[in-house]
Amino acid sequence: MSSLDTLIQDLVVANRILAKEEVVDAYGHVSVRHPDNPNRFFIARSLAPDLVERDDIVELGLDGQPVRDETRQLYLERFIHAAIFEARPDVHAVVHAHAEDILPFGIAQATPLRPVIHSGSFIGPHVPVWDIADEFGDTDLLVRNMDHGRDLARCLGSNKVALMRGHGFASAGRSLIEVVRLSVYLPRNARALLRAKQLGGEVKYLTEGEINARASGYSAYSPETWRAWEYWASKAGCSHMVTRPDGKHEH
Amino acid sequence: MSSLDTLIQDLVVANRILAKEEVVDAYGHVSVRHPDNPNRFFIARSLAPDLVERDDIVELGLDGQPVRDETRQLYLERFIHAAIFEARPDVHAVVHAHAEDILPFGIAQATPLRPVIHSGSFIGPHVPVWDIADEFGDTDLLVRNMDHGRDLARCLGSNKVALMRGHGFASAGRSLIEVVRLSVYLPRNARALLRAKQLGGEVKYLTEGEINARASGYSAYSPETWRAWEYWASKAGCSHMVTRPDGKHEH
Amino acid sequence: MSSLDTLIQDLVVANRILAKEEVVDAYGHVSVRHPDNPNRFFIARSLAPDLVERDDIVELGLDGQPVRDETRQLYLERFIHAAIFEARPDVHAVVHAHAEDILPFGIAQATPLRPVIHSGSFIGPHVPVWDIADEFGDTDLLVRNMDHGRDLARCLGSNKVALMRGHGFASAGRSLIEVVRLSVYLPRNARALLRAKQLGGEVKYLTEGEINARASGYSAYSPETWRAWEYWASKAGCSHMVTRPDGKHEH
Amino acid sequence: MSSLDTLIQDLVVANRILAKEEVVDAYGHVSVRHPDNPNRFFIARSLAPDLVERDDIVELGLDGQPVRDETRQLYLERFIHAAIFEARPDVHAVVHAHAEDILPFGIAQATPLRPVIHSGSFIGPHVPVWDIADEFGDTDLLVRNMDHGRDLARCLGSNKVALMRGHGFASAGRSLIEVVRLSVYLPRNARALLRAKQLGGEVKYLTEGEINARASGYSAYSPETWRAWEYWASKAGCSHMVTRPDGKHEH
Repeated sequence: MSSLDTLIQDLVVANRILAKEEVVDAYGHVSVRHPDNPNRFFIARSLAPDLVERDDIVELGLDGQPVRDETRQLYLERFIHAAIFEARPDVHAVVHAHAEDILPFGIAQATPLRPVIHSGSFIGPHVPVWDIADEFGDTDLLVRNMDHGRDLARCLGSNKVALMRGHGFASAGRSLIEVVRLSVYLPRNARALLRAKQLGGEVKYLTEGEINARASGYSAYSPETWRAWEYWASKAGCSHMVTRPDGKHEH
Repeated sequence: MSSLDTLIQDLVVANRILAKEEVVDAYGHVSVRHPDNPNRFFIARSLAPDLVERDDIVELGLDGQPVRDETRQLYLERFIHAAIFEARPDVHAVVHAHAEDILPFGIAQATPLRPVIHSGSFIGPHVPVWDIADEFGDTDLLVRNMDHGRDLARCLGSNKVALMRGHGFASAGRSLIEVVRLSVYLPRNARALLRAKQLGGEVKYLTEGEINARASGYSAYSPETWRAWEYWASKAGCSHMVTRPDGKHEH
Repeated sequence: MSSLDTLIQDLVVANRILAKEEVVDAYGHVSVRHPDNPNRFFIARSLAPDLVERDDIVELGLDGQPVRDETRQLYLERFIHAAIFEARPDVHAVVHAHAEDILPFGIAQATPLRPVIHSGSFIGPHVPVWDIADEFGDTDLLVRNMDHGRDLARCLGSNKVALMRGHGFASAGRSLIEVVRLSVYLPRNARALLRAKQLGGEVKYLTEGEINARASGYSAYSPETWRAWEYWASKAGCSHMVTRPDGKHEH
Repeated sequence: MSSLDTLIQDLVVANRILAKEEVVDAYGHVSVRHPDNPNRFFIARSLAPDLVERDDIVELGLDGQPVRDETRQLYLERFIHAAIFEARPDVHAVVHAHAEDILPFGIAQATPLRPVIHSGSFIGPHVPVWDIADEFGDTDLLVRNMDHGRDLARCLGSNKVALMRGHGFASAGRSLIEVVRLSVYLPRNARALLRAKQLGGEVKYLTEGEINARASGYSAYSPETWRAWEYWASKAGCSHMVTRPDGKHEH
């Protein structure tokens, strides 16, 4: 397959993994930037991630509109992706989801969500909370246009994740494999922090030095990173769709 | 299929979805009003929702009695459905269930259940708690007749959901697809609220304006709504039973 | 099948249901009294309940010893069953298990476990906590002989369930179908109570009158009771082993 | 099969069980000491435990390095195993994992993790918490070399389990079957303790006498111990790989 074909297949796998790991359900989506044209990105048409196939992937511009004639329904909130790709040239993949266990941290903001476990380090030292009401008042909470999307991207800033009050989160990575891993461990970190607080006493967060040490050791196709991608794809029943970094297929 | 056949098939699908999503177990039921005769509704005979087939669907009147000779056992609590259909001409589908995570809010009433997440907005701004003991004293807590049912319907009023103390909930929608979605996200909203309270500090509920904005944007067969129905049916293993709004079958 | 064959098959089904519903794991067991000889009961040999077949069922006396030559290993804690059958002629089926969510109530005894949900009513108004250390000091916590068993049975008294501190519970019913249902809903009631307490404020327990009303309406082979047995057997993959009260097989 | 072949097959089974029981996910590993050469041990190459096959098992020395030419990637943290085998001649099997529900006890250290349930007794009376930062400052939290490993082994001392702050745990047993069982029940004990504390009031821990009584009754191939191994292997879909203590295969 061409590298573009491989990327699109990886995007299908990412959809299935996020569904199996319960980061998304019927709602939520994942996108990847076009490798040759930074002004475009790929995302599924409006469909539950678990059901996404190659033919369901569409190509959008940074205005969130399809670059070709498209009669199929698109995700209403595709502007989350468009605006983050627009604001962040370093970002190559985005997830938006409503993973249940991060929701409390957007609703009750007395306890900021921060890394407490090593696998949660990739969410970064600071996870801002975006409240659509601050700028737009009473809405249906959906990111329905570029104004909404840009306001969210502004709040995200240079961070990896922004929580969205009463709604979910948006996460940004340098690759699909990074943003999926980050999104899978985000709720786990949230649960560990919630329960640590229930135990009482001082909570030991990861230090900034530890978060940096982990970030600097990260590589999208290291054997350690690959191990999780391969495993999650297997759990999600799509091992056969996985292309290894060396271009070989899993079998 | 005729539209009535389709509706009954949809009711079978609704049973399976509610079972798969753990809203019901052996107990709990879902009904839909007859599209041509508002004084009648369809519901399964006494059977666990996961096991319901087309032939298990019976037709009842607003007194909760079968409109044809019926030798099979009926749900004891079918009067929940009859009384809500009687009191609420706007309601076309009803769920009664004991979804575990809403139970605490009926037992400890210091914290009212209200929407804190966007997918929970459809439960409406106010979720009353009905206590059968207020009117009927010590009972087995079951809604065994029209008196019980009407008292519950009175408590429900014009709301979408009433909690039933020590028992479960009743929810009312304009369509099967609406009441199923509402019933699936109700426990999720309950969990998010419980955990937000555990984090401490101020809880940001959805505002009345946000709840209204979401309600006014809702349409039973919008692509967004359909996406969830299609996904849940797939998870429940009954994609092949789903009829699309345009009358075509999923395949 | 003879009624004895049917009963033994029901016992196999009960083992599988309790495993599927996560009341037991590798450990825990269920027994049923011999219908024609009240001084004997049936229980599996030492084996995880999910793996139990007909040939694994053994017949024991009220001293906990096999009534026939038996070379296979027996459950160490079979004396729980023997002692309860000895002390309680009204009891025809017993479960012992370590269902996770009841454990906290045996460890932290400030909050007694009592019914808060209608499906939990069958645990009865009072659930005593037995601590083996009170009578026997430091042990391995196992009920290894009739002295241990009789002390537990004494604590159980005329109740339906006794918690065992740091260990699990023993439950007693008039039939297999009753004791299985009770044991499945016991952890659910425990979770509802724990979470209601986390919400704060007054907890509304079921009243004694409500518990009695439910108990007096209970019948082992009512359609409502049967509905759950049939459903759980289906989930556990053993619908084909189920014999209906009228002697017919499910198909 | 030779006893060495059997041991390696058991190690494959242990990998699968730990995955199925959610002690490990893509990460985490289990090892066993060479029965004839105490200076060597077996562990999988870098691979998710659920995917491990016989050919994925490698043989390492107590310096954590492979004893034969090995081109495949090894676990970065294999030094956990090497250092514990080096320090503890009594230990024949080691698990390192990030089981979610033990994490809070490493993060909020006000409540030490101690046995509260009989199946948790095997974690021993004292579970130290190792913080890599105490000796090594800001790191990526991984046990990347023998210095890290030896510091962890020192903290573990003669105990069965050490928690690793913000990371996971390391457990040590006299056999694979022991360390797997211990690692499966460790998170369950953690959950029971967390919830008991939420109920409030005095928590009744297992006494030192009870822990000792259980430890002295333990035997790796007792019928009770075997029962769990057989059950977990069945759940993990690898009954056919299990060799019974008498050398016979399960079927």
